[in-house]
Amino acid sequence: MPKPVTFWFEFASTYSYLAAMRVDAEAKTRAVEVIWKPFLLGPIFAAQGWNTSPFAIYPAKGENMWRDMQRLTDKYGLGFSRPAADDPRAFPQHSVLAARAAIVALHEPWGQDFCRSVYVAQFAEGRDISDPVLLGDLIDAAGGASQTVLFGAHARHTKDQLRKHVEDAMALGIYGAPSFTVDGELFWGNDRLEDALDWALRRS
Amino acid sequence: MPKPVTFWFEFASTYSYLAAMRVDAEAKTRAVEVIWKPFLLGPIFAAQGWNTSPFAIYPAKGENMWRDMQRLTDKYGLGFSRPAADDPRAFPQHSVLAARAAIVALHEPWGQDFCRSVYVAQFAEGRDISDPVLLGDLIDAAGGASQTVLFGAHARHTKDQLRKHVEDAMALGIYGAPSFTVDGELFWGNDRLEDALDWALRRS
Repeated sequence: MPKPVTFWFEFASTYSYLAAMRVDAEAKTRAVEVIWKPFLLGPIFAAQGWNTSPFAIYPAKGENMWRDMQRLTDKYGLGFSRPAADDPRAFPQHSVLAARAAIVALHEPWGQDFCRSVYVAQFAEGRDISDPVLLGDLIDAAGGASQTVLFGAHARHTKDQLRKHVEDAMALGIYGAPSFTVDGELFWGNDRLEDALDWALRRS
Repeated sequence: MPKPVTFWFEFASTYSYLAAMRVDAEAKTRAVEVIWKPFLLGPIFAAQGWNTSPFAIYPAKGENMWRDMQRLTDKYGLGFSRPAADDPRAFPQHSVLAARAAIVALHEPWGQDFCRSVYVAQFAEGRDISDPVLLGDLIDAAGGASQTVLFGAHARHTKDQLRKHVEDAMALGIYGAPSFTVDGELFWGNDRLEDALDWALRRS
């Protein structure tokens, strides 16, 4: 049996969007199990002395990231809508409620569909994923019960669980998103998705 | 005719090593012309407030980069020797003399061979590429005349040329290495080598 791959994603992360939309198909062709694990980059960036995304701090890097996203979404056939540069709330978005909802949702068979729909709403449709009304609509559309999931998202044990994901990520040396861990290896970035899944196969 | 692709490389950059060793074969299969352009990241990093490589500033990022280099050099069949972590001169190395020598060498048919040999000496053999004796040996081995090239490396117009490469890179929005520019597009990283070459084809 191949070892499972853990997929660490941050809802506010552009390249996590690409990986979230691709990982299922790539995992299926390899018969590799993928464990989805939402986490937050904010505390990890803060520990590096950053108060926001490096794409917001370093303009040249940020500008090319958006162009890169346009090219890659074209290549993968995904929707994309660049956030307004003059709206500081547009990027990076506040992702904590979405991450807590995902922790609840990922116990259900429709959980990954919900996660993908959050990314599409944000990066293809330009919507605000901190809005509980939007999140509720996405939960219902994915097949869940929005009131139950959003209630669970605010539960103490859900908040603790998300905090633990962040602590675990830091302990594993994770410094960006998406990341993939398998069999003691850490792979960073959508560009390493295939390599991470292949690693699971070679260690089976 | 496909548009030419400019390959921007920094000798001290680990991922530039990977790209330098791969670009020729990938370009040949596509019949795309590649223009090699050495530049320096130091002034570009300084403009972002960094006094060294981000891999040296951010330990988790640096640690994973070295592991990533081991995995990728294994995958590509390239030599690799991780620099000693306790030697601050080991990474990033001082690359200015090598870059000036490359500016002279790249006018000659053996210029790219020399550039590749600088990378191999540094990242596969752990040698110090700021050493003029080593650079002279590599020039001679590539088919050049070391005394002539090293004399040219110290010429005013060579230094001016390297400075212009750095200014041109900044004007193009380049913030890391390797980078590829083609037809108004900027691609960052060894991971985008194929995409940059493919872009040249689609615009032909």
